[in-house]
Amino acid sequence: MADDDLCFQSAVALRRLMDAREVSALEVLDAHIARIERYDGGLNAIVTRCFDAAREQARAGGLSGPLAGLPVAHKDLTATAGLTTTYGSPLFAENVPQEDSLLVSRIKAAGAVTIGKTNVPEFGAGSQTFNRVFGSTRNPYDPSRTCGGSSGGAAAALAARFIPIADGSDAGGSLRNPAAFCNVVGFRPSPGRVPFGASENAAWSDIGTQGPMARNVDDLALLLSVIAGPDAAVTNALPEPGDTFRSVEPARLGDLTIAVTEDFGGLPVAAPIRERIRALAGELEQAGATVVEATPDLADATRIFHILRAERFRARFSRMPAAHKEELKDTILWNAAAGEALTHDDIDWVPAARSRLVERVARFFERFDLLIGPTTQVLPFDVETDWVREIAGQTMTTYIEWMQSCSWITATCAPALSLPCGFTDGLPVGAQLIAPLRQDASLLAAAKALEDIVGSAQVAPELEADA
Amino acid sequence: MADDDLCFQSAVALRRLMDAREVSALEVLDAHIARIERYDGGLNAIVTRCFDAAREQARAGGLSGPLAGLPVAHKDLTATAGLTTTYGSPLFAENVPQEDSLLVSRIKAAGAVTIGKTNVPEFGAGSQTFNRVFGSTRNPYDPSRTCGGSSGGAAAALAARFIPIADGSDAGGSLRNPAAFCNVVGFRPSPGRVPFGASENAAWSDIGTQGPMARNVDDLALLLSVIAGPDAAVTNALPEPGDTFRSVEPARLGDLTIAVTEDFGGLPVAAPIRERIRALAGELEQAGATVVEATPDLADATRIFHILRAERFRARFSRMPAAHKEELKDTILWNAAAGEALTHDDIDWVPAARSRLVERVARFFERFDLLIGPTTQVLPFDVETDWVREIAGQTMTTYIEWMQSCSWITATCAPALSLPCGFTDGLPVGAQLIAPLRQDASLLAAAKALEDIVGSAQVAPELEADA
Repeated sequence: MADDDLCFQSAVALRRLMDAREVSALEVLDAHIARIERYDGGLNAIVTRCFDAAREQARAGGLSGPLAGLPVAHKDLTATAGLTTTYGSPLFAENVPQEDSLLVSRIKAAGAVTIGKTNVPEFGAGSQTFNRVFGSTRNPYDPSRTCGGSSGGAAAALAARFIPIADGSDAGGSLRNPAAFCNVVGFRPSPGRVPFGASENAAWSDIGTQGPMARNVDDLALLLSVIAGPDAAVTNALPEPGDTFRSVEPARLGDLTIAVTEDFGGLPVAAPIRERIRALAGELEQAGATVVEATPDLADATRIFHILRAERFRARFSRMPAAHKEELKDTILWNAAAGEALTHDDIDWVPAARSRLVERVARFFERFDLLIGPTTQVLPFDVETDWVREIAGQTMTTYIEWMQSCSWITATCAPALSLPCGFTDGLPVGAQLIAPLRQDASLLAAAKALEDIVGSAQVAPELEADA
Repeated sequence: MADDDLCFQSAVALRRLMDAREVSALEVLDAHIARIERYDGGLNAIVTRCFDAAREQARAGGLSGPLAGLPVAHKDLTATAGLTTTYGSPLFAENVPQEDSLLVSRIKAAGAVTIGKTNVPEFGAGSQTFNRVFGSTRNPYDPSRTCGGSSGGAAAALAARFIPIADGSDAGGSLRNPAAFCNVVGFRPSPGRVPFGASENAAWSDIGTQGPMARNVDDLALLLSVIAGPDAAVTNALPEPGDTFRSVEPARLGDLTIAVTEDFGGLPVAAPIRERIRALAGELEQAGATVVEATPDLADATRIFHILRAERFRARFSRMPAAHKEELKDTILWNAAAGEALTHDDIDWVPAARSRLVERVARFFERFDLLIGPTTQVLPFDVETDWVREIAGQTMTTYIEWMQSCSWITATCAPALSLPCGFTDGLPVGAQLIAPLRQDASLLAAAKALEDIVGSAQVAPELEADA
């Protein structure tokens, strides 16, 4: 097998090849490193690299576990022992953590080989991957455009075949948006499914969660099975063992009643995306699914998400020394200031409004197995644009408003997965699959069934032309 | 079997007798009603009654489920369709809900027969059961003393053999304190184990939880198995099905390494309670357990609990119209005002401090299977005393400070159970058993093993003398 061909294999296939000794972990690693060195100059996806250490590890052998020998890069928002972790901020440009995050330690314990860190927006804020430490990450399908974010480096690296699996995280869409923009799969699981470690202080909010990304559902499930599962020191960690999720039986489409919406009830959405979602609905119906145009009432999701997000930004950034605040980008300062402006009335309003929202969604899912809508409201846009100012004639007033197709779902606590859904004018479109609370396994089963229909995840970008 | 003897049977035994048709649900019900009518005048535990409806239900037959035919009364903080639900407040003295709470609907669906509501402090605030709607509930073991609270009517009713099982709820000790004061078992499970319904807006706080009370661990587990389990509309509901908990195999004491503390690291505790806990440690050691005097570092638990509790009181009470506020007791007004006084600094301080606290407790439990300490710091006190002003020479400055032996554990999210631990001067003492996060099942197994040693749960009060 030619070296570069290894990079076009799935993670599951690579594991099988290594188990059968048809290829070594070092060969797999070297193939991916060669590809990164050849093409990442034009993309800037893997911004911190530890190739020597990775080669040493692969050469030493003895890797075991479900991810044994698979090259992986970690999102630069998660701590890696001995490997620079910048959060995309000049304040942490030289930061080398002492310890791995819980996420990274689980991936390493499963035998994966860390080759570096994937680029992020500054502190993960905004679904566009640029920062003053490393610059912008470009979209492998059109390097003049953004890869999205905040798990943007991860999505671009997967699409470019630099790594077969990647971790990410998501508050307002950060696992879903870049997956849609880069034609890969990104899964925001139920809060607590992939727990943050105790020292990350994140167990008290269900807004942010970590999750897996890959090029297909089986690879995604393999990674999920390693990063999911309880932890004795984390209060919101769900109790099911991670390996519950290791293998996915596709749902039978004929058994599914699917609600499809182009706009979740009134969001502005670019016309080509609406067309792709409509086309998918038709394809699903032809394949035997019962398809109904419907959306739950997501009223109040905007204000709920705004308040919960602003509280987090205030807690994280408002008490920084003035000299440090000067190093924060304006959108972060705006979001922290929004947190400072919150009143007790705002905060006390959330629980009842959110309970009603979650209950409406639960009642909706009594009639449907799955909800499908667009992951993003726009196609990948110019890499020089920091955030989208207008969609379908409607003005966006904040840097996160253009991602409400994702952030509204965050407010409901439902698990959501972005699945490649085809191309329009050469740019990928993602379908967002949403399941009832904690039904991560049935969401994966549905995604695998849909994957067979859409089939687009296997289209690789012609990087040679762009490099 | 004489009628009154039925009231001295366990719930499990009553179920067996009814299944074997040795006794009917109506006979069981009538025996308990007769006992309530004879003795509750002096105790005031079951303050709203629906005996006619209960008799009609028992007479109609057709009751099925794990609790079929068992008489039960619900805490007056939980909504019961068609049955007055006062929250112990004059504001709700005439309140008749349209719907059952999720808790009550689960208990009814399991075949139990609702006979009424158990008394509570006003809105459940404070571990002393008195209010201006129904007055005080007295301790069956000494009616001049309090039964504790806030599930005080439930605990007194169990001790007096008015009902074999009861539901309760707990934020700062309300399932544990009255169990200790009344010589019954009260279990504060892991948050989300017994979910509040969506309309109760409680899924966003892990401070308050509902739970079971009974006179022994098997009966407690039977009720837990019915009220635990996920709900599609409640985000924090844990996924294990309730029947996971139905039957309890006792742990082998020889396998347990138990940490015992008299005071959780410096709390003032009345001398007779210290003595009982010390004696229990000796008894456990004699029975083969490995016993070590140790406590986790619960630093910051006081401030964490204060902030989280004050936020809840502010949200619930601060926006009431002035005329309604005039009907609130002073301690509630104080607690709501404490919530209004919270700053962003207070609120933003909690997550990291609490993560550290939870992590310290998790590390502690790497060395121990179980932590045992006192449930309460004082013995049942004069029923005319609203809250404890002094313990072992130390002044208490707020109405909840005297319950830190429970509220500190609440802050850790650990499940905790109060087990009868013997008597001192005729008054019951409770041992608080605490397990790692979400280890509710192993906590029950340990409690059942200890129950055999303590054996005191079967001591019944001589109500004849007091009535």
